[in-house]
Amino acid sequence: MRTSFLSDDTICAVATPPGMGAIAVVRISGPKSHEIACGLFQRNGQPVSMEKIKSHHSYYGNIVFPASSEHAGELLDEVLVTFFNAPHSFTGEDAVEISTHGSIYVQQRLLELLVEQGARMAMAGEFTRRAFVNRRFDLAQAEAVADIIASQSEAAHRLAMNQLKGGFSKELQTLRSGLLEITSLMELELDFSEEDVEFADRSRLRSLLDKTQNHVKRLTDSFRWGNAIKNGIPVAIVGETNTGKSTLLNALLGEDRAIVSDIAGTTRDTIEEVMNLDGILFRFIDTAGIRETEETIEKIGIERTFRKIHEAEIVLGMVDITQGLEAMKAAARFILNKADPAHQTLVLLLNKSDRCPDTAAEAIDEIKNMVCETLGDDAAHVYIQTLSAKTGNGMDALRQTLKEIQQRWRVHQNETLVTNVRHYEALSHAGQSLDAVRRGLDDGLPTDLVAQDLREALYYLGSITGEITTEEVLGSVFSRFCIGK
Amino acid sequence: MRTSFLSDDTICAVATPPGMGAIAVVRISGPKSHEIACGLFQRNGQPVSMEKIKSHHSYYGNIVFPASSEHAGELLDEVLVTFFNAPHSFTGEDAVEISTHGSIYVQQRLLELLVEQGARMAMAGEFTRRAFVNRRFDLAQAEAVADIIASQSEAAHRLAMNQLKGGFSKELQTLRSGLLEITSLMELELDFSEEDVEFADRSRLRSLLDKTQNHVKRLTDSFRWGNAIKNGIPVAIVGETNTGKSTLLNALLGEDRAIVSDIAGTTRDTIEEVMNLDGILFRFIDTAGIRETEETIEKIGIERTFRKIHEAEIVLGMVDITQGLEAMKAAARFILNKADPAHQTLVLLLNKSDRCPDTAAEAIDEIKNMVCETLGDDAAHVYIQTLSAKTGNGMDALRQTLKEIQQRWRVHQNETLVTNVRHYEALSHAGQSLDAVRRGLDDGLPTDLVAQDLREALYYLGSITGEITTEEVLGSVFSRFCIGK
Repeated sequence: MRTSFLSDDTICAVATPPGMGAIAVVRISGPKSHEIACGLFQRNGQPVSMEKIKSHHSYYGNIVFPASSEHAGELLDEVLVTFFNAPHSFTGEDAVEISTHGSIYVQQRLLELLVEQGARMAMAGEFTRRAFVNRRFDLAQAEAVADIIASQSEAAHRLAMNQLKGGFSKELQTLRSGLLEITSLMELELDFSEEDVEFADRSRLRSLLDKTQNHVKRLTDSFRWGNAIKNGIPVAIVGETNTGKSTLLNALLGEDRAIVSDIAGTTRDTIEEVMNLDGILFRFIDTAGIRETEETIEKIGIERTFRKIHEAEIVLGMVDITQGLEAMKAAARFILNKADPAHQTLVLLLNKSDRCPDTAAEAIDEIKNMVCETLGDDAAHVYIQTLSAKTGNGMDALRQTLKEIQQRWRVHQNETLVTNVRHYEALSHAGQSLDAVRRGLDDGLPTDLVAQDLREALYYLGSITGEITTEEVLGSVFSRFCIGK
Repeated sequence: MRTSFLSDDTICAVATPPGMGAIAVVRISGPKSHEIACGLFQRNGQPVSMEKIKSHHSYYGNIVFPASSEHAGELLDEVLVTFFNAPHSFTGEDAVEISTHGSIYVQQRLLELLVEQGARMAMAGEFTRRAFVNRRFDLAQAEAVADIIASQSEAAHRLAMNQLKGGFSKELQTLRSGLLEITSLMELELDFSEEDVEFADRSRLRSLLDKTQNHVKRLTDSFRWGNAIKNGIPVAIVGETNTGKSTLLNALLGEDRAIVSDIAGTTRDTIEEVMNLDGILFRFIDTAGIRETEETIEKIGIERTFRKIHEAEIVLGMVDITQGLEAMKAAARFILNKADPAHQTLVLLLNKSDRCPDTAAEAIDEIKNMVCETLGDDAAHVYIQTLSAKTGNGMDALRQTLKEIQQRWRVHQNETLVTNVRHYEALSHAGQSLDAVRRGLDDGLPTDLVAQDLREALYYLGSITGEITTEEVLGSVFSRFCIGK
């Protein structure tokens, strides 16, 4: 399937970030890359001979307008040119990197010259795609390249780097081996089917299937963690109107991100902000205050709040300590009901503690009792602490709590986590096919029907690494990349 | 003077534009650059030995957290590392370039690691400053590096490249030689002064002084052109209120840059936009309409308009063709009076031609006669054409006129032009000192007093190339640079 993508032409693009800088790097890859670069490159006023060029060597010299140009012989820039011989380059093809002065004019003009000399402007992700086509790495590893570039935290970077180094691909290989063994056991059975002999070692087949199903399930489940680490652990800030949710968000981020006012219902949209705490990204979601309302726009905001609570891993429940004990308990109970303490970590924040410093200790005890009565064992997942988002009192304790919670996430860092929606979907489909295999075995379906489901599972796993893929899938994967990668 | 700047430490910075890209390049320069890079660099799981490294060779390998780090042994990124041995590097020092995946996380983390290993974050322009200190080039050439990076047009790029290649420095050298010859002629005179013999060859001295003064004057005058080419030829769009100035600007730029409305006085601020026409940058200045007004803010705008007319090289004078012949003439005459047709190129645009297509030819003739009567010979610098900025009729003709005018600028492209305010000021000061020398000779001042003025002229010329300079000047020059250059 990889060979369906022909790359007999030579592509070029700026590989460094867009804009002006001290230097910029223009990358060329393809069979004519050396020839095209040498057509523009001079050292000490002399053209550079392709034959004399050494791979991986950086040559200092000039980019000079070629004879065909109206500026023939004029100097465009002083550059450093590095040549790479196939297959020892990023793409696996002959390649060249030209390091220029980082002016926008030079970058554009050099690309124009390269195109005039026979190169073609690369499409998004085309360099990585060529590396994939030339079997420098598989599709999951190619996708890791994009993830590395986009990484915003140490944890996300480490996940992407593990994927690039083939950690994920190795697990998929193990899964495929298991499935192939199941398939061959089944084929053995098929071979003997006319003799109507059921295969002797069905227990071996079932144990392999168990193991594979569990493995697929572990990987599918890991997407929850992988996605949170890649995009930030979702933390919903919820509570009644005017309990100080936006003030808390601002205090956490250290800037006036959300509009803060005393008018109830100021925040109608959900606002998301990311914060890097000790190398882990948190994605804070400020939500509309929960209250009975007839106002349409605000109603939509409140419905969205419930959805955001559902999607969060951590819920910061804001309760106004100045409203009296009964109102606080009612508010806290409401949040407990909307959240899912069995699967989420809930932090109840008794806010505005600056305005009633004396009742704080008592309030905590009362709320704690209520939580224990309501939740039983799940109460262990609930933190209760006082806060003044306005004065900053209690903010350090809250950050400490977030760090404590994130420790649980650190455990997952050495496992392979699925971070990519495409992989998650393929694994889910593979899981469904394996469920069908199991049902088929349980119901005594004909072996060749069961084998069909097995092949489907293999297909989905193969689509992740690109063993089995289509032009459409490749197009969609690489279009996510930036130009020059 | 150059040696006052010690560089016994090793500096590092990201050299590519800020942000995310396929790749980023981190640059290290200084005596420990190879050692620091090797402390983090591994190939095939093995540390890289400094002794075996070849200059200008690119090594593929891994950046690995060092033993001292809490992440000891972990992989940060797969990279390409190129080593440069002094003096064969940009700075003239031992240097290293590390080409990483272009994620912001990797760039930051790598810099942190380099600093932990003993490098220091580079200050703005520090790499180029070291190149200057190590006599890779003079100060005017160093400044050209910043100009190349900032170039927005072919013409500006070519000027900067000529300066980098030493074209300007060579002219300064010629000037200095002339001044030194004058000085030695004078010293000869001083040696014989006790014998009260006036120097025999004063005519030689005066002819040298003439030549040098003319040369300095030509360079000083060239700043007008050099500055316009570097920053864009200033074109003022002027006229009464509601003559379509903003509509013209939008039509020129092809987008809705200025707020256009039918209410007279919409444009109060001057708006500047640049446009690249055939490799020359034009800087269009939309101005407040000129009319009698009592409104304070608008009055300020109109005063600013007069200033902008004065600063422009080209004045586009807008006249409303629908207002009748007499009003048009009055408006055109007003613009003629405010502009300076002896030194500026004036284009009178009879706008809104779509609304009275029949009177256009007659209007042009009448205005042409008026211009010839008013200006005499200077009328040659005035173009008169009809336009409908709204429908676009006449826009091509206007662009053609601008191209015609710019041809005059192209003539200057092969001369050395002064583009830098610092150089312009130094040359102006040198010119004043030479004027004083001439007056001294004319007035028969004692030779040692005249020699003092000559030394001043030499000082100013030397300050341009950095032969003579101060820490303050260097600091100010290099702080204009970006980090990493």
